Amino acid sequence: MIAEIIAAGSEMLTPFRQDTNSLYLTAGLNDLGVTVAFKTIVGDSLEHLTGAAVNALRRADIVIFSGGLGPTEDDLTREAAAAALGIELHPDPGMIAALYKRFAERRMTMTPNNTKQANVLDGAKLLENRNGTAPGQFLETRFAGKRRIVVLLPGPPKELKPLFDEQVKPRLAATLPPAFIAKRQLRMALIPESLVDSRTAPIYKTYADVETTILAGSGEIQLNFIVAKPTLAEAQAVVDELAAKVEDEMDEDIFSSHGESLEEVVLLNLGMRHLTLAAAESCTGGTFAERLTAIPNSSRSFVGGVVAYTPELKTLFVDVPAEMLAAEGAISEAVAGALAEGIRRKTGADVGIGITGLAGPGGGVGPDEGKAIGLVYIGLADAAGTAVKEVKITGDRERVRWWASQHALEMVRRRLLQG
Amino acid sequence: MIAEIIAAGSEMLTPFRQDTNSLYLTAGLNDLGVTVAFKTIVGDSLEHLTGAAVNALRRADIVIFSGGLGPTEDDLTREAAAAALGIELHPDPGMIAALYKRFAERRMTMTPNNTKQANVLDGAKLLENRNGTAPGQFLETRFAGKRRIVVLLPGPPKELKPLFDEQVKPRLAATLPPAFIAKRQLRMALIPESLVDSRTAPIYKTYADVETTILAGSGEIQLNFIVAKPTLAEAQAVVDELAAKVEDEMDEDIFSSHGESLEEVVLLNLGMRHLTLAAAESCTGGTFAERLTAIPNSSRSFVGGVVAYTPELKTLFVDVPAEMLAAEGAISEAVAGALAEGIRRKTGADVGIGITGLAGPGGGVGPDEGKAIGLVYIGLADAAGTAVKEVKITGDRERVRWWASQHALEMVRRRLLQG
Repeated sequence: MIAEIIAAGSEMLTPFRQDTNSLYLTAGLNDLGVTVAFKTIVGDSLEHLTGAAVNALRRADIVIFSGGLGPTEDDLTREAAAAALGIELHPDPGMIAALYKRFAERRMTMTPNNTKQANVLDGAKLLENRNGTAPGQFLETRFAGKRRIVVLLPGPPKELKPLFDEQVKPRLAATLPPAFIAKRQLRMALIPESLVDSRTAPIYKTYADVETTILAGSGEIQLNFIVAKPTLAEAQAVVDELAAKVEDEMDEDIFSSHGESLEEVVLLNLGMRHLTLAAAESCTGGTFAERLTAIPNSSRSFVGGVVAYTPELKTLFVDVPAEMLAAEGAISEAVAGALAEGIRRKTGADVGIGITGLAGPGGGVGPDEGKAIGLVYIGLADAAGTAVKEVKITGDRERVRWWASQHALEMVRRRLLQG
Repeated sequence: MIAEIIAAGSEMLTPFRQDTNSLYLTAGLNDLGVTVAFKTIVGDSLEHLTGAAVNALRRADIVIFSGGLGPTEDDLTREAAAAALGIELHPDPGMIAALYKRFAERRMTMTPNNTKQANVLDGAKLLENRNGTAPGQFLETRFAGKRRIVVLLPGPPKELKPLFDEQVKPRLAATLPPAFIAKRQLRMALIPESLVDSRTAPIYKTYADVETTILAGSGEIQLNFIVAKPTLAEAQAVVDELAAKVEDEMDEDIFSSHGESLEEVVLLNLGMRHLTLAAAESCTGGTFAERLTAIPNSSRSFVGGVVAYTPELKTLFVDVPAEMLAAEGAISEAVAGALAEGIRRKTGADVGIGITGLAGPGGGVGPDEGKAIGLVYIGLADAAGTAVKEVKITGDRERVRWWASQHALEMVRRRLLQG
């Protein structure tokens, strides 16, 4: 069974906006063993939308529309689906009453155009929308002699998601052969994708029934395994066995074997050891702190830190000696160590991180003149002493800053593994 | 003239990856007066890709393919385009020689599958790819009696973008009626979209020839105007006149009238006044500093700050009195003011910002117990004194933190406008 997702809305054909609902819908369809084979994005034109619907009905078993169910003239999905299927729309009296009631409860007058949302494809089931006025629709039908399922969903994600999960997935599952899908995700940081692939391909390729996807980006590699089996227990056993073998191979390079982010893993490991962390950031300008504090309850382990962007602030807040800054430059092994030690001493945290580097695009000045853009030093100070790592990061300012914070997080994680 | 973009690649039919090339291509096509009417995303299947190509050739004047031009078995765009058009592919001897040369220069052996990248659609012009092995292709042809332009582009953005800009846009422009497009973008922060629309619609609706798009999100509203005229001067005059009228209406609510970000505007205004800024952040955890330091040369105006996440660090780094924290709680008007004043005094910056609030999902503890999630106080201290603003932000942790940083940036901007 293959599916096509049609996203309706002219705004998604501008340089500014993109269809994102289809990612959510794809994950849900994959859970049911359904592959998405096509996605079409089409504007608010009855002709274009009807043509896209005909194409979809020809080539896909399941056609899911998102958007174009509202009350305005531009909302044409119902009309296009009806035209493509060669069937009629009829107003649903119960839904019209429900719309009047909804407006009355909000003490608003319902304009007549709203009743169009109660137009139903002949034979379709209306799907109640808790979070908006436009209901979804679910239709089992035939097109050119073939069995087809047509689903209409409202465009706003907070309406589409619960409607899809609660009302569409169970209905689809009931019409599909039972599929039991199990997934696992292994995550690694700062390792080249080619290296991960050359070490793990000999393992995952022996599991021909498991679909393996390697995703790389932002200093992280994800290995995704997904398998369908006649029972959930069988499916789970297969992905767990494969994941265990890959974990044996990659060992401590894997920071997460159940989907947690690197930030979450670092905070979790600090929490388990009752350790606290603080950071003095220069080139990352708060990226490291921002990433950790984005996690709820991070304050249990991450106490805070300083963004010591100028040389003066490095001295003021964490006592980096002015002579060291003048002699070595801010972008130096010595200063990274002093930042880490200084923030640890000042805050009393168990682990101190110091990050200094040249994010570009401008070059270094004074004692930092001539240092390469992308040169970053990361210091880690704890009870055992201070270590500094030098890294060279390619790319633009945003990339250097992100990767520097990634290196710092990974450095904390690996330090904690050592005990 | 309408265009369709076909993105080829099974990875874009997973929940993990999305087509993004089409946003770039759409902006470039709009510059030429071409509207994108359809986008199709299709996997690495010859049957599916050929079917999608036929549909596109039926309904669009210009069909642009991205991806599927590499050397592997999965790269099928050339074959699908040829099958859909009913034409042949032929190997280009010059391109085969160029591929051998490219590999030789890198001291690599070229595997035979690479020669497939030299297969050209009959009648097509090969487009040299500076950043990769697979060349693009440009073909003017007819399909079912209609004039069609077919373009094949490699998928990696760093290959596709220069190839499109340097080789496809000039060729398209030469075949299209001259279109002179002018654009303007006005940006505002923290104003409801409905308010912006009700105040500006009476203005922009009198310009029926200008396409106006309102985009809202992340605490920002963008008004985009685009118009096509027989000359560039005429087009520019129309959007400039409209933009001036909207600027009159919205006045200081507009932070940027030529596309600069809020961060850039704040730094620019500080720089013009030779003022420096520092921040003491609690709930935003570095978001404010991260946003400012993402801008190159921000260190000229933003000196840095502290992420004072725990009460102890608020006292340690910026002298917030422990008694104040105990009496009022960290999430209070008094503490926001003390953070702003403290960081200003400590760093010697001209303007100090203090941000404290409850980002959730957990509630406040101790003296902050019972305070609402989303309650945020922002303090601004400068030579004229200290002001504190209370805001209530709805949504999850990420949204509260982002909007809090947005409020703080906007507070600095508005303070600087006052002189």
